Amino acid sequence: MQVSDSVGIVRPLQFTFNAPLRLQNGSILPRFELTVETYGTLNAQKNNAVLICHALSGHHHVAGYHSPEDKRPGWWDNMVGPGKPVDTNRFFVVGVNNLGGCHGSSGPLSTNPFTGEAYGADFPVVTVKDWVQSQMMLADRLGIERWAAVMGGSLGGMQALQWAIDAPERIAHAVVIASAPKLSTQNIAFNEVARQAILTDPDFHNGHYAREGTVPRRGLRIARMMGHITYLAEEGLGKKFGRQLKGGNSYGYHYDVDFEVESYLRYQGDKFADVFDANTYLLMTKALDYFDPAQEHRHDLKAALARTQAQFFVASFNSDWRFAPERSEELVAALVAAKKPVQYVALQSHHGHDAFLMDDPAYMRAVRIYFNRIAQGLAL
Amino acid sequence: MQVSDSVGIVRPLQFTFNAPLRLQNGSILPRFELTVETYGTLNAQKNNAVLICHALSGHHHVAGYHSPEDKRPGWWDNMVGPGKPVDTNRFFVVGVNNLGGCHGSSGPLSTNPFTGEAYGADFPVVTVKDWVQSQMMLADRLGIERWAAVMGGSLGGMQALQWAIDAPERIAHAVVIASAPKLSTQNIAFNEVARQAILTDPDFHNGHYAREGTVPRRGLRIARMMGHITYLAEEGLGKKFGRQLKGGNSYGYHYDVDFEVESYLRYQGDKFADVFDANTYLLMTKALDYFDPAQEHRHDLKAALARTQAQFFVASFNSDWRFAPERSEELVAALVAAKKPVQYVALQSHHGHDAFLMDDPAYMRAVRIYFNRIAQGLAL
Repeated sequence: MQVSDSVGIVRPLQFTFNAPLRLQNGSILPRFELTVETYGTLNAQKNNAVLICHALSGHHHVAGYHSPEDKRPGWWDNMVGPGKPVDTNRFFVVGVNNLGGCHGSSGPLSTNPFTGEAYGADFPVVTVKDWVQSQMMLADRLGIERWAAVMGGSLGGMQALQWAIDAPERIAHAVVIASAPKLSTQNIAFNEVARQAILTDPDFHNGHYAREGTVPRRGLRIARMMGHITYLAEEGLGKKFGRQLKGGNSYGYHYDVDFEVESYLRYQGDKFADVFDANTYLLMTKALDYFDPAQEHRHDLKAALARTQAQFFVASFNSDWRFAPERSEELVAALVAAKKPVQYVALQSHHGHDAFLMDDPAYMRAVRIYFNRIAQGLAL
Repeated sequence: MQVSDSVGIVRPLQFTFNAPLRLQNGSILPRFELTVETYGTLNAQKNNAVLICHALSGHHHVAGYHSPEDKRPGWWDNMVGPGKPVDTNRFFVVGVNNLGGCHGSSGPLSTNPFTGEAYGADFPVVTVKDWVQSQMMLADRLGIERWAAVMGGSLGGMQALQWAIDAPERIAHAVVIASAPKLSTQNIAFNEVARQAILTDPDFHNGHYAREGTVPRRGLRIARMMGHITYLAEEGLGKKFGRQLKGGNSYGYHYDVDFEVESYLRYQGDKFADVFDANTYLLMTKALDYFDPAQEHRHDLKAALARTQAQFFVASFNSDWRFAPERSEELVAALVAAKKPVQYVALQSHHGHDAFLMDDPAYMRAVRIYFNRIAQGLAL
């Protein structure tokens, strides 16, 4: 644990919502729980709150440590903390594990009240819109009428965008990083291969693997290995691993590890399969696929944005080929066409899609400047 | 079957080689067989022969039909035939299934003479260099001292390049399309995920699935689905499928097919898993990974090319991100630096890596012009 500029030791909070939540798929969750972390202090005007939305494999643990022995901080600790771009000395920051997640919020691992067993595959397929609804109920509970900002990268950025559309009066700034107004065909294709790897794993048992005492590790591992390649840029991968061999200078002429990059990928796959839930992975990829706010406006993104009141900050990374700069620029163009305030930053990085999680100085500076502007606008 | 400009009905030939072949991995194949097709006629001077080398999932059946009822011709039928870019009225064209293949040549499906059972995983991991050695023995058998051209796309192009390096006096022209002088880190990474999908399939049984009466369909299917995405360009995928839904206009909120592209990928995966051998798939990906002719020349490609005598034709496609134009240009730059004759064509296509198999007019014209030049040079 490093404490100098950290939010320090944090503890997740559990919120129970007994009001029913009607989901986009037509079903109703009679009650649900959200696991949350908060950093900093909500001011008296309650106008300094920032909601951080997570991406596919993220969760509520955005910053700080869970214990003094904890070696790794939250997933966006470089971004959120005292004196950091999202400065917890000024902002009250809220991290939340989304519905359907596997880190404490209601999801496939939770007990289905109707059966007394884990939901597993019976947990409903939730959408970005559903998440925003549940996050609104969380905002109500926290007494936050209007977020200073809703912020996220990738799937997290989609939530910020959906907030601006669904609750125009409740969000002052939407911070949308390495995201897109909808997935491309190729994005959906990769998600489908990941799902098929999980769904066809003999240990998946139609999603009721908990009941069978199995875990579809193979499928989840393959899904993650493939996903991992697409989150990185060729340039970054090449710089890090090149064609370096794991042991010595000669090829093995076998199917064990020859190249360093193979060893790295296997490690990433194994590690992920140890901690992540396969049903949650499936559900998150579907939320990504389905996200398309322009759809209900005859595929006119400008029309979808017409009622937004937020100011937008949009950022992309040049080596991100999963959510390429062009995808961010579609959003920017639609915002400009709709005469909405937007600041766009096209950043350089060789980290690919993962760049949104990295500690790049130009990136950090851009976000810092934007949040300074937010703070000034709110007289924080 | 379409006969107008086709080579017509063709029949594969089987060649048995009883001379031992020493492989790069140190082992020796005491005897082996190659399955071959030929089109056109070898002239009296025996100087009009063209060897077509196949890529990962290809084989000897390059052109024509196997029966009048045959619906699909060979895999490069648009390229090879009477009056086609590689004109069988002038050239004697040879297609060969590589060692380790699953279409008739010695490979994992063949009987291991030492056990009387299928080799399965015991078939040695062969390399591009090994293939060129075996193809030289085939050339000897056919009485071909020097190929007018050795030609291929992707992994096939690597074989053309290796021919120019290993047998400078036996190849007049090397035609290297959508290829690279070695795989990138990202290329290897994708291959490794494909291998892991197969290797961890419970039906794989360490490669001895034939003995167990199983087929690792799941793994092979996932490998192909992922591979397929990487062979196509986002642009082409988007044009073909976009975000079109398979049934009606609404999402299913399930893990069955929602989008057309999902259905397409599943079909491609299923079809491939029905006909291809998993051990061959593993072996082909390793041949790709290991190919790196500059390695034994201190990673100096120019030095590796120093003794080549062939003239080179190199072509790339702008939307090919698996073997990007930059990779072809590495080869071209090294050839220029080594003062070797090379013609390079950077083609436009939205078909990605698969463009090398497609019927694009500019592409066909470029190859046609080059083969006219070859024919003129040989006074065919």
